[in-house]
Amino acid sequence: MPDLRLALAQADTCVGDLVGNARLVLDAVAAAAAGGARLVALPEMTLAGYPVEDLALRAAFRDDAMAAVDALARDLADAGHGDVTVVVGTIGTTNTPDGPRPTNRAVALREGRVVATYDKRHLPTYGVFDEARIFEPGTTTTVLDVDGHRVGLLVCEDLWRADGPVAELADADLDLLLVLNGSPYEEGKDPERLGHARRAAATVGAPVAYVNQVGGQDDLVLEGGSFVLDVSGQVVARSPQFEPDLLVHDVPRRGGTLARGRVAPPLHPDEEVYRACVAGLAGYVRKNGFRSVVLGLSGGIDSALVAVMAADAIGGENVVGISMPSSYSSQHSKDDAADLARRIGADYRVQPIGGTVDAFERDLPLDGVAAENLQARVRGMILMSLSNAEGHLTLATGNKSELAVGYSTVYGDAVGGYAPLKDVLKSRVWALARWRDDHALDHGKIPPIPESSITKPPSAELRPGQVDQDSLPPYDRLDSVLEDYVGRNLGHDALLAAGHDPATIELVLRLVDRAEWKRRQYPPGPKVTAVAFGRDRRLPVTSRRREASAPIPTTTSKEQP
Amino acid sequence: MPDLRLALAQADTCVGDLVGNARLVLDAVAAAAAGGARLVALPEMTLAGYPVEDLALRAAFRDDAMAAVDALARDLADAGHGDVTVVVGTIGTTNTPDGPRPTNRAVALREGRVVATYDKRHLPTYGVFDEARIFEPGTTTTVLDVDGHRVGLLVCEDLWRADGPVAELADADLDLLLVLNGSPYEEGKDPERLGHARRAAATVGAPVAYVNQVGGQDDLVLEGGSFVLDVSGQVVARSPQFEPDLLVHDVPRRGGTLARGRVAPPLHPDEEVYRACVAGLAGYVRKNGFRSVVLGLSGGIDSALVAVMAADAIGGENVVGISMPSSYSSQHSKDDAADLARRIGADYRVQPIGGTVDAFERDLPLDGVAAENLQARVRGMILMSLSNAEGHLTLATGNKSELAVGYSTVYGDAVGGYAPLKDVLKSRVWALARWRDDHALDHGKIPPIPESSITKPPSAELRPGQVDQDSLPPYDRLDSVLEDYVGRNLGHDALLAAGHDPATIELVLRLVDRAEWKRRQYPPGPKVTAVAFGRDRRLPVTSRRREASAPIPTTTSKEQP
Repeated sequence: MPDLRLALAQADTCVGDLVGNARLVLDAVAAAAAGGARLVALPEMTLAGYPVEDLALRAAFRDDAMAAVDALARDLADAGHGDVTVVVGTIGTTNTPDGPRPTNRAVALREGRVVATYDKRHLPTYGVFDEARIFEPGTTTTVLDVDGHRVGLLVCEDLWRADGPVAELADADLDLLLVLNGSPYEEGKDPERLGHARRAAATVGAPVAYVNQVGGQDDLVLEGGSFVLDVSGQVVARSPQFEPDLLVHDVPRRGGTLARGRVAPPLHPDEEVYRACVAGLAGYVRKNGFRSVVLGLSGGIDSALVAVMAADAIGGENVVGISMPSSYSSQHSKDDAADLARRIGADYRVQPIGGTVDAFERDLPLDGVAAENLQARVRGMILMSLSNAEGHLTLATGNKSELAVGYSTVYGDAVGGYAPLKDVLKSRVWALARWRDDHALDHGKIPPIPESSITKPPSAELRPGQVDQDSLPPYDRLDSVLEDYVGRNLGHDALLAAGHDPATIELVLRLVDRAEWKRRQYPPGPKVTAVAFGRDRRLPVTSRRREASAPIPTTTSKEQP
Repeated sequence: MPDLRLALAQADTCVGDLVGNARLVLDAVAAAAAGGARLVALPEMTLAGYPVEDLALRAAFRDDAMAAVDALARDLADAGHGDVTVVVGTIGTTNTPDGPRPTNRAVALREGRVVATYDKRHLPTYGVFDEARIFEPGTTTTVLDVDGHRVGLLVCEDLWRADGPVAELADADLDLLLVLNGSPYEEGKDPERLGHARRAAATVGAPVAYVNQVGGQDDLVLEGGSFVLDVSGQVVARSPQFEPDLLVHDVPRRGGTLARGRVAPPLHPDEEVYRACVAGLAGYVRKNGFRSVVLGLSGGIDSALVAVMAADAIGGENVVGISMPSSYSSQHSKDDAADLARRIGADYRVQPIGGTVDAFERDLPLDGVAAENLQARVRGMILMSLSNAEGHLTLATGNKSELAVGYSTVYGDAVGGYAPLKDVLKSRVWALARWRDDHALDHGKIPPIPESSITKPPSAELRPGQVDQDSLPPYDRLDSVLEDYVGRNLGHDALLAAGHDPATIELVLRLVDRAEWKRRQYPPGPKVTAVAFGRDRRLPVTSRRREASAPIPTTTSKEQP
């Protein structure tokens, strides 16, 4: 029996777009069939998009998805690909004592109809995932016959668990284990993913083919990186991350040896995070029908990096950068902003805030933090006015460190529809900026970010001589506590035991806890770490829990903001 | 054997406040023991607070909660109540193959120690609930002996399901089924709750004692309304809703007859929703350490109702109402705002926006929606400036109809820390205002809301002669579609079949879908319906699903806002 030519189509689907997603399948199958593929696989929930959230609970959507599967099967046959087996993800429906419930389903299409189905068994309900909320788990395994090859089907989380379908398929005499995935990017996840794939390959005694979705969807970046792994655990073929791809590979019968094919090299860690942010931003802009973005350019590192990410995502000519100087803005900040805009080819404008601030304060004099926030809010108003008038998506330029400790003005610098650095700590912002400039140099281009934006001390420039470290610990120390408190959920004593400075712990924990209300109103941004703010970390705003060594107070004071 | 004197202590706990919540238990037990109670029960997760969300996943918090249980048992004995059996909720820990995991636990305390534990079996993972995410389910039933009476323990959702512990306790020869609850208010939920309690009473052949938490917690209002129900399904004792209470009742041995005790009468539906909003607001203000609120008073019905709710929650003298007129503001609007403030005794101030708007537009001329939004944003800036300068919590005054269709300005009238009408449709806003004024008249008081605020056509007054119905269908028609689309998740065809006007359906669905991004940045507010915006309804921002009869577009345009 000949080898089975397999194609993994790493598609950039869109949630809810049954018609557009079906077209992606048709295009992928046409390309794969032209290359002789007999089995074409697409990601988890291909047709419905992923994560579909509570759309799954709408019967009308499930009915339309069901009809879309049948239409796709017919369209594939009509296009002359009826003899190719196509495995796609979709939303299914199953009957339960409580009525019809959705399932996370894989269907195999051939000769114009559905020839096999499989409902995901393990429903992740942790981190960003809410699948037990919206899906009913499957109860069986499915083995598909493709030209005499026995192909076991799994969906995503099924692969991550040793019990359930992997164990049940151990004696199924498989030639291939095929896994459909919608796996969001987070830094450092890949070794764990490969580890599970290796364990499963060993359990079932067959290669594993892993096809993953790619592209931005709200706060997630589906990372792609589809692969084929032989029974010994060797990756023999791999798609790149963060871009659509079609990975074609021949798989022999059980016990045969897989050739080595195209294997995309791993990215440098900074490049990986940078590209994840760009993919998230590009997906949000395109899928929501925007063509351009607007952001404030302060001359600082955060706005510079966001502007360059935006230029990489949608082209510098679609980036509108606004310098909004006050009397506290330094000349070098204004120069750096203009320089950056020139380097990336942005539409650069200057819109001073002094007139509005003065007029406001004539009616309502302010000082201290209120006066600082006012400046930030006038800037937010300028950005939103330009967004309203010209149709740009507003980008918030804040980073994860600021969001963690509430070092930003709600309705001020926090305005926007998307926040590319939402999950990037300040220390990493510098590293990504350095990487991006070095990457330009390596390719003989002009580094987009002015050197002085990277090297100068960070400042909000809301009062004379202000720098961030007037209010915050040095960023390396701050970020290190944040990694352990937010990222690892350590309490006070565990943070002490981990060697953090006691005073820094006290300050940072207090600031993080009381900024929860601000985070709730912050725009979405791409998850790139194990614990992003948002649905990854669901904490009450109203809470008297204080992770501090001092006695737990029974009343607390929380000012706005 | 004598009857068992039972006390249900409907407490207003606070999430994370282990010390304060333990004090509530000590106080309740002292009062109950003074009345001769032998069994005192408090709500689900008494010590940790509810819903505790991802705090449950922090080991340091679980350890402290465990220590708090032991300390409470000792404190109860030290206070001379060692012979009373006290059942409280707390967070437990259980070992699993994946490591320690939290449980939603009830513990019985007596003679200074824990004498029984029960871990909740059914973990709700729908609507606002995420319990499968944070808890491991229990696997056993628990029957407690109190002075020879056999008392079965359940926690909340366990009562709502016929399978599991209720079925397993059928032959346990119980004298009483005791249920600890953290059940959020939603209108119309009570008959369903009582139905489940009646079914359970019949199954186990014993009365049901149901103790519920009370008070506001972020977007939930725990509603109280604790009750004792005899085996025939008759409610023989009941606490009021929305306030702490201690309900003492004697329960005979199995087969005995329960006397009728104090039964709080049901509230009028409008009073119930009104009080739920006030309880939510009062809880948010107090538990977050605020003493006062600030809001804009436009003279319209929404801000008038919110101001009166705030006055009822924290006293009119703690309400700061700001009139922020523009050249489009009518004299009657300004008069109505001043009149309302006088009636409730608010701190009333006038802060015109014209100077700031003009200064802004000198630098950046705007027209159309951008100019309208500018006015709303200057008002938002005034409110946040006063919040920053004086420490008030800012209240957003928008209602659910506006939030649904995006008829509000993000960072403008949407600013604030809490939104009391977030889950109240505009039609209901009028009804609540009418009820509140009638209620005042019934009690010989001056109606707080000026009649003209209730009767005049709603207008944002952002351009000359503007009324809401320039942009929106009449509110009764709009709200009726929203009830079916948002509340019942019906698709387009089902809405047509339900008799809604086709053009209204098309318009409303399009507006609702494209306003999702605005809702994400809106402050929390009290859930009062079956489906509130927020964690009750989790839909992607990025989605091409369109519930419309027109073909599904493959690209969409989404402007801000």
